[in-house]
Amino acid sequence: MIYLTRRERFSSAHRMYRDELSEQENYRIYGKCANPLWHGHNYTLFVTVKGSLEGDLGYVMNSSRLKEIINERVISKLDHKNMNLETDFMLGKVATTENLAVSIWNELEESIKKEGAILHCVKIEETENNFIEYYG
Amino acid sequence: MIYLTRRERFSSAHRMYRDELSEQENYRIYGKCANPLWHGHNYTLFVTVKGSLEGDLGYVMNSSRLKEIINERVISKLDHKNMNLETDFMLGKVATTENLAVSIWNELEESIKKEGAILHCVKIEETENNFIEYYG
Amino acid sequence: MIYLTRRERFSSAHRMYRDELSEQENYRIYGKCANPLWHGHNYTLFVTVKGSLEGDLGYVMNSSRLKEIINERVISKLDHKNMNLETDFMLGKVATTENLAVSIWNELEESIKKEGAILHCVKIEETENNFIEYYG
Amino acid sequence: MIYLTRRERFSSAHRMYRDELSEQENYRIYGKCANPLWHGHNYTLFVTVKGSLEGDLGYVMNSSRLKEIINERVISKLDHKNMNLETDFMLGKVATTENLAVSIWNELEESIKKEGAILHCVKIEETENNFIEYYG
Amino acid sequence: MIYLTRRERFSSAHRMYRDELSEQENYRIYGKCANPLWHGHNYTLFVTVKGSLEGDLGYVMNSSRLKEIINERVISKLDHKNMNLETDFMLGKVATTENLAVSIWNELEESIKKEGAILHCVKIEETENNFIEYYG
Amino acid sequence: MIYLTRRERFSSAHRMYRDELSEQENYRIYGKCANPLWHGHNYTLFVTVKGSLEGDLGYVMNSSRLKEIINERVISKLDHKNMNLETDFMLGKVATTENLAVSIWNELEESIKKEGAILHCVKIEETENNFIEYYG
Repeated sequence: MIYLTRRERFSSAHRMYRDELSEQENYRIYGKCANPLWHGHNYTLFVTVKGSLEGDLGYVMNSSRLKEIINERVISKLDHKNMNLETDFMLGKVATTENLAVSIWNELEESIKKEGAILHCVKIEETENNFIEYYG
Repeated sequence: MIYLTRRERFSSAHRMYRDELSEQENYRIYGKCANPLWHGHNYTLFVTVKGSLEGDLGYVMNSSRLKEIINERVISKLDHKNMNLETDFMLGKVATTENLAVSIWNELEESIKKEGAILHCVKIEETENNFIEYYG
Repeated sequence: MIYLTRRERFSSAHRMYRDELSEQENYRIYGKCANPLWHGHNYTLFVTVKGSLEGDLGYVMNSSRLKEIINERVISKLDHKNMNLETDFMLGKVATTENLAVSIWNELEESIKKEGAILHCVKIEETENNFIEYYG
Repeated sequence: MIYLTRRERFSSAHRMYRDELSEQENYRIYGKCANPLWHGHNYTLFVTVKGSLEGDLGYVMNSSRLKEIINERVISKLDHKNMNLETDFMLGKVATTENLAVSIWNELEESIKKEGAILHCVKIEETENNFIEYYG
Repeated sequence: MIYLTRRERFSSAHRMYRDELSEQENYRIYGKCANPLWHGHNYTLFVTVKGSLEGDLGYVMNSSRLKEIINERVISKLDHKNMNLETDFMLGKVATTENLAVSIWNELEESIKKEGAILHCVKIEETENNFIEYYG
Repeated sequence: MIYLTRRERFSSAHRMYRDELSEQENYRIYGKCANPLWHGHNYTLFVTVKGSLEGDLGYVMNSSRLKEIINERVISKLDHKNMNLETDFMLGKVATTENLAVSIWNELEESIKKEGAILHCVKIEETENNFIEYYG
């Protein structure tokens, strides 16, 4: 088994809150991330796939194809968007980085399998001091 | 003359547009940054001050004091905020990084002079591929 | 299971040596890190916790609370200190990054469990060319 | 078990292609990396070894010795070289980062075992957007 | 005056040598960079332009247009190429980073002037330890 | 004129204080950096030289020679040392980054002139949030 990781980036607005809670409650749970007027981040996404090196090609999967899949299914829906309001796979979810990682995993898993590799990890850096990893 | 730079960071939502233009016109000029539903960034701010090393202290100005000034006058007004709607010194301006740099300069210049140093440069990185510098 | 990592930093003086060895022996084993007059580093600490996303909150644990725990139990005892002489959990140990990682693990494990998450990894970068990881 | 990682760097020319294929076929499979006139990269190599902290030394293995092994067996054969034409352990292989990682693993495994540690991972970053990991 | 910088990257093969010198002489002057079988780097290019903020747009020049100019005139001629053999503006020159910076300046100066801004600096990082700046 | 910068790194212990002041006074002026038991940093040093490209060589000065000069005159005296007690050019000075930058300038200026280039800037990063620049 060998692991290939691609880094992609996107810049989004978001807000963490739950509709059924008061603004005060949301601030208590999510801190300044609950701001109703939004804030935003430069997110860095690392997608790791794994596979064997059998065959003559010498790679896990075509890295350009991986980039295309990530851009089509994830980046195009998040970059320069409001993830709470505009990103189909985040609608109705609390916009935590944890939920974002799980949702991105679900977006990518099948497409990568079709290329003969296996999705291994979705990692998202929200700031240089915080990151989330999800292994399915 | 010797130059001291402090780095601080903030995460904001913003949108680039001019009220007097149509949405279509704004998209033509500002591209995807015109999105009416906002997007956001992790901004990195570098504030450079200059001064002489006369006296016994061996520094340009107290670096902790510089940090306090930047946080009080700039970061607290931008971090986890919507700069178009919530940041007093950006209200009514197009939220470009250029305008942001000039506005931050104006916020800082006097406070730094009171500490005996001279503001030299405000630099803002919006993404790892773009930055703006302003020297007054 | 989902993994949350926080990065924190501290700057310390240290020296690697064992009391029962001669200065010459210490230099042979620890190289220039044995300098009796100390040297120091900017250390970068990555603390990874894991947990499930059950419940409505959408996160592993509150990231600000994790930051507080790390600062209270670790950073405040190491930053701008001499870790051989001033850091309670390092007294009497060889100040290698390996021993530091194990000691930090022991400082954090219980406090994180009380918050409902599980400590997964302590990673310490001593320079940009060297890092240590400990998984308990 | 505790894990020690060292980072080393090298700059090489390379080309991805298979002799038995036409230039057109190679471009279809390997994209612009098939350029017959070569291109090159600054590669960053991370070598992770593991071991216990038994004994009095307080480290997994001597970090300077690990650096020597990596430089002698890997960096000296790749840095400022053409890896397809000059690097003994890459001759006759497709110069993908995947094959490079496996080959470097084979170069290092025995030498590290002789020092009392176990090779755990070889990671290679080809650009800031792509990296490969191999765990044997 | 306000300054806008864009970062772009390219990966090239190159060799430093002068035809009229022996291989031995070239090695004496250019060290391991004289290798006749080539080597390569990930180059990072920073292009800085300056201008005023007069008018209503709030920017120096359109950052996307600047990206297009750099890609069309510079990156497309260098990325995944051999700069000694394939890059029109480097043919017949010693492939030092200094000469590369001056040549890139000459490629960009006019195109940027047509957009109403002024080219201020071309900076090239060849490795994380070396960079060149040229101000015309 | 063209500018060449080399990055070098060193790890030192230091303390900021003035002998004629009480410990309390030193803490008031230099904060936690006054700790009598030392602390330390990974310093990053950027040395910029300038010169013309006249002649056939195509470079400002030999980059390997610049590295040698910096290592011989600066790094070897600071790395894994206590700069207050062991670095000849810092003895008797307050160990601020400002004083360090001026002292390094004085160490390098003549040696670089002998190589036919001109020292332009000494920049020192003490942490990722603080740096000092000195232009002579």
